[in-house]
Amino acid sequence: MSKSNELAPFFLGAYAENNSVFESIWLEFYREHVSWRRGFHPEDEPPIKADVQFQPQYLQSIAKTKQSLHKLSAKLRQSVPFYHPRYIGHMSSDLLMPGLLAQMITTLYNPNNVCADAAPVTIDLEVKYGEKLANMFGFNTVPQHFPCAFGHLTSGGTVANYQAVWYAKALKYYPLALQKGLANFADFTLTLNQHPLADHTQWQLFNLPFDQIVQLRIDFFKALQNCTESLRKNILQQVSQARIEHLGPIDFFAQHPGLKQPLLLVPTTAHYSWQKSAKILGLGTQQIVKVATDEKMRICSAELAQLMAKYAEQQQPVLALVGVLGTTEFGTIDPVADMLTIRDSSRAQGLEFFIHIDAAWGGYLSALFRDEQNQLRAYAELKKEFRYFPSPDLYAAFAALSQVESITIDPHKLGYIPFGCGAFVCRNQAARGFMVEDAPYVFTGNKYDSPEPQLGQYIFEGSKPGAVAAAVSVAEEVLPFNAQGLGRLPQLTITATEHFYDRAMSLAKELAPHLQLNIPIEPDTNLICLAINLKGNVNVGRMNKLMERLYDRLKVDPSQPLQNKSFIASSTKILKAYLSKEAASNLCQNLGLDETTLVLDVQQSDQADHLFVLRHTLMNPWLIGEHGNYIDQYLDYLKDLIMQEVVAFSSSK
Amino acid sequence: MSKSNELAPFFLGAYAENNSVFESIWLEFYREHVSWRRGFHPEDEPPIKADVQFQPQYLQSIAKTKQSLHKLSAKLRQSVPFYHPRYIGHMSSDLLMPGLLAQMITTLYNPNNVCADAAPVTIDLEVKYGEKLANMFGFNTVPQHFPCAFGHLTSGGTVANYQAVWYAKALKYYPLALQKGLANFADFTLTLNQHPLADHTQWQLFNLPFDQIVQLRIDFFKALQNCTESLRKNILQQVSQARIEHLGPIDFFAQHPGLKQPLLLVPTTAHYSWQKSAKILGLGTQQIVKVATDEKMRICSAELAQLMAKYAEQQQPVLALVGVLGTTEFGTIDPVADMLTIRDSSRAQGLEFFIHIDAAWGGYLSALFRDEQNQLRAYAELKKEFRYFPSPDLYAAFAALSQVESITIDPHKLGYIPFGCGAFVCRNQAARGFMVEDAPYVFTGNKYDSPEPQLGQYIFEGSKPGAVAAAVSVAEEVLPFNAQGLGRLPQLTITATEHFYDRAMSLAKELAPHLQLNIPIEPDTNLICLAINLKGNVNVGRMNKLMERLYDRLKVDPSQPLQNKSFIASSTKILKAYLSKEAASNLCQNLGLDETTLVLDVQQSDQADHLFVLRHTLMNPWLIGEHGNYIDQYLDYLKDLIMQEVVAFSSSK
Repeated sequence: MSKSNELAPFFLGAYAENNSVFESIWLEFYREHVSWRRGFHPEDEPPIKADVQFQPQYLQSIAKTKQSLHKLSAKLRQSVPFYHPRYIGHMSSDLLMPGLLAQMITTLYNPNNVCADAAPVTIDLEVKYGEKLANMFGFNTVPQHFPCAFGHLTSGGTVANYQAVWYAKALKYYPLALQKGLANFADFTLTLNQHPLADHTQWQLFNLPFDQIVQLRIDFFKALQNCTESLRKNILQQVSQARIEHLGPIDFFAQHPGLKQPLLLVPTTAHYSWQKSAKILGLGTQQIVKVATDEKMRICSAELAQLMAKYAEQQQPVLALVGVLGTTEFGTIDPVADMLTIRDSSRAQGLEFFIHIDAAWGGYLSALFRDEQNQLRAYAELKKEFRYFPSPDLYAAFAALSQVESITIDPHKLGYIPFGCGAFVCRNQAARGFMVEDAPYVFTGNKYDSPEPQLGQYIFEGSKPGAVAAAVSVAEEVLPFNAQGLGRLPQLTITATEHFYDRAMSLAKELAPHLQLNIPIEPDTNLICLAINLKGNVNVGRMNKLMERLYDRLKVDPSQPLQNKSFIASSTKILKAYLSKEAASNLCQNLGLDETTLVLDVQQSDQADHLFVLRHTLMNPWLIGEHGNYIDQYLDYLKDLIMQEVVAFSSSK
Repeated sequence: MSKSNELAPFFLGAYAENNSVFESIWLEFYREHVSWRRGFHPEDEPPIKADVQFQPQYLQSIAKTKQSLHKLSAKLRQSVPFYHPRYIGHMSSDLLMPGLLAQMITTLYNPNNVCADAAPVTIDLEVKYGEKLANMFGFNTVPQHFPCAFGHLTSGGTVANYQAVWYAKALKYYPLALQKGLANFADFTLTLNQHPLADHTQWQLFNLPFDQIVQLRIDFFKALQNCTESLRKNILQQVSQARIEHLGPIDFFAQHPGLKQPLLLVPTTAHYSWQKSAKILGLGTQQIVKVATDEKMRICSAELAQLMAKYAEQQQPVLALVGVLGTTEFGTIDPVADMLTIRDSSRAQGLEFFIHIDAAWGGYLSALFRDEQNQLRAYAELKKEFRYFPSPDLYAAFAALSQVESITIDPHKLGYIPFGCGAFVCRNQAARGFMVEDAPYVFTGNKYDSPEPQLGQYIFEGSKPGAVAAAVSVAEEVLPFNAQGLGRLPQLTITATEHFYDRAMSLAKELAPHLQLNIPIEPDTNLICLAINLKGNVNVGRMNKLMERLYDRLKVDPSQPLQNKSFIASSTKILKAYLSKEAASNLCQNLGLDETTLVLDVQQSDQADHLFVLRHTLMNPWLIGEHGNYIDQYLDYLKDLIMQEVVAFSSSK
């Protein structure tokens, strides 16, 4: 059976081929829900009498409902056909049928995953799913080993990213607060690295590794056991009041005058939620350092190393370094392994920062890298399955994930789960204790029991749908996070991307007499861009106009019937501001463009501050198969569009 | 037709009486979705071949899906039966069938409401629903009139509350940034209240009313029209860099040394998301002032007035005052009208603050107060429908909503929509412009066009489910926000609460020889608490133990079959710390308790820092009807439980 046929049972399908399976499964479980309702207290009289259901007023109300739904359903016919292999635009596709069904069924029960009281079933599913995600990244989830990871769902990647900043702040500032809070308790001693806590400098305390901060708090709670109840309360209050969460940033920094404001480093390609996070979470956007990306649209390791060395020397604190595993615009993968190396050398210089990976897009590719025993697959074995993927540095990036502090991943992207479903995974579950309002002091023997508070206390959100937890949980059970399970999907779509790449290169050769067509950024994942420039044109402004005209034929247009679109793609801008001089120069040269027309500040119409390119997200499992090859079809279609432009361009001369 | 029968067509029902209607409607629209999939490019060959669907490997995969769903569905039978009138616990109930169906149908299409590109249909539904919410609160939504309101959905009330803080910060600090940013442009003059902007003090600039801040920005953009392009860019950059969003709180306050850190005032009863908001959003919890609540668990107006007068005198800035329209624990309604009066007198003293109403719970009661022309109904007319509801101050609170700045409301509570669905409504849509990254300078003639950016730029979240927008939109179309529409639901449930009240009072009389039973807090909405103390006991600690034993019989217990529970209620704590001395004393006296055993700091087991009470949320439309009276049944059941305790207590003597 072909690989796409193997996945056929898991999607409704482009022709809704699994229509009757979906319908019968849904009906079975809907009817079970009905029977469940009737089983709670069977002795009760049904409140709605059947004779009421035949009265005109009742029927009118049903009619009203149907009318409103008819209107909705009619409008929905204008929806974007994400499910179809002709849709290669944004990060949306058909949905995993097991997840979709689980979500629809569970919505009937409407559990609220804010606490176990409101969701006895689905909270447990969410916690377990968090562990599965953690395992896929290589984190430990065996409670007997330290650190033990955890994960949970969010409404989307944006909120998971905010939460990473919240966690980083709560932990990084804690040792300073602890030192300050204990200052008045001369008899209460706490040791850190064989020295009294009081003897450490502010710089040292801000630069402790994640696990050491967690351990420091555990040591603190252990030491509290030897205090009287009233002393313990007093100390806890003083420490709590020395924290930035209590004081706010202004008073906290006033109490630590030697400490500079920490920076948050992100690549220039980072999602705009990072910029938003600074505005919202009490940093300023000036604290965000956008690190240059190289030609591959990955964070530039050399630049990053230089920056960190400078910060270490200047004692400029860094809150966190964010890497992107699959950029939103280009799908490119930051060099996570290099980031770890840079962290090691920074650590040697006394500078410590958290690493958060925004894997909203690329996180689920990790399934490809895991075998059925959740071991990292050998490079050579993986390599055999593809023509180009994965390069050694890409492999290293995925292998390095287990060493970072926290990760954002979006089930509603490559998890093929309905919107909105994001997730946050953290390497050390004891971090949750730093978020909880009331200081816990529960001990069992020698072991510090991390509190099991209500989810609402340590997550960003409050009430949240348990149905989403059911969706991800069933999807994972059916297609677990390994190369034989969910990994088959990226296996298929990356192969499709490689085919796209090869075919685009042939097309480039074929059309070389008329134009330059190229792939401006080497694809790291199943996302691929195209840039096209006609022979005879050298200015970027004019190339962009051509590209925009092409895109007009490929974009969603609610004013036209859906069927008018042969294919739907998306577009993006490669900003001059994000490119190194060399990268900009190469890009222009490859397209036959005069690089002086790609500028930072546009003054004339032949200039532009960006290259406008076509962007293709290849998520659909049926791009290539016995039924046809949509990638070939697309490129043939694109060729026709381009040739029309060539003719128009020649006749305009 | 009785009122509950009128609502019968809109819920699946306690016995799933509308089972076949639900099923047939779902099937109709599911099948329409199938036909839609087939209509996109009918010439395409279906990728999944029928012969594949009969192969063993395919069938095994379907079996795997079914098995996983069987497991899920079996577990879901342990779900909390929110839908049943025997469930009177948390803020959950049966769901509105039109909304639920709309959500399930739309999930098949999976639109993403982050931008119109990904949701051509449902973004429009979300925007229109935001306007309907705004209208229900009395806000204007006619664009020709100023200010014009807007609203949008969030994943829940917690995020909507965060967003209110974000908006308040963005606007309140803006005039200060504008003054600072323009400082180097002597020739560029801007007038505020007939005086040059430069002449205003920091205190004055922080204390401008909402609409005036918006107008100031409009005036600023108008004045920019007369500048050269390069000057305009320069000015915009300087202003942008003077904003707190760029500088962060520390540098911003360093640039405005005369300005104290502003406070955020919330009642002691406020939801814990407010405390969390301070930790997350760059305030400190020390900037949160918890204003005392009176015996009715409403914010104490006298105390609030005193505080504000003090702040005005001390030039202590206030970011916002939060009122709660339906507290989470008691359902009580803060005196919004008094808040407006206090704002007026503060304004006269130069102190200006935003008012945000957290109406997560009570917001939809507003539908009761609106007629079919969206006019506020007369008090006398409304009063006729109830025995006690609404008191004149309650009516005044709802009537005053149109004067506040922003409101949180949760469709997933009294909107009877699945989790998670919250909403944020703001009186002035021009506020969105303050959130957008790029400074807009688009003008049409004399009119300032507020930008229409992608939703993602001015909301807290990013990708979000369009299916939820379809749910609320269809629900509203079927049951619009007026007394004849959605208002019929609170009409019914508040009536049920009044019946509960009367019956509990009778029960109190009947059981008076044995115990004191009372309603510790007068219900403002359809949420009612009960406290019970046996004759002969005077200490709070002991009373709480009795209450906890009663609650054990009424709480969800996953270790037992669901059917073992006759009724499911919830519990809450009335904290000593939140009560005035008088209120604490009265509460204790009414229960025959020694008030010295209700303490702030527990030292002995007979003491407690709270009263543990039973809490009942009456959301179900079928609590009282021809089929029976669940409230009477519940109180009879409770009486039995109590009498068992009386016997046990007597025999223990």
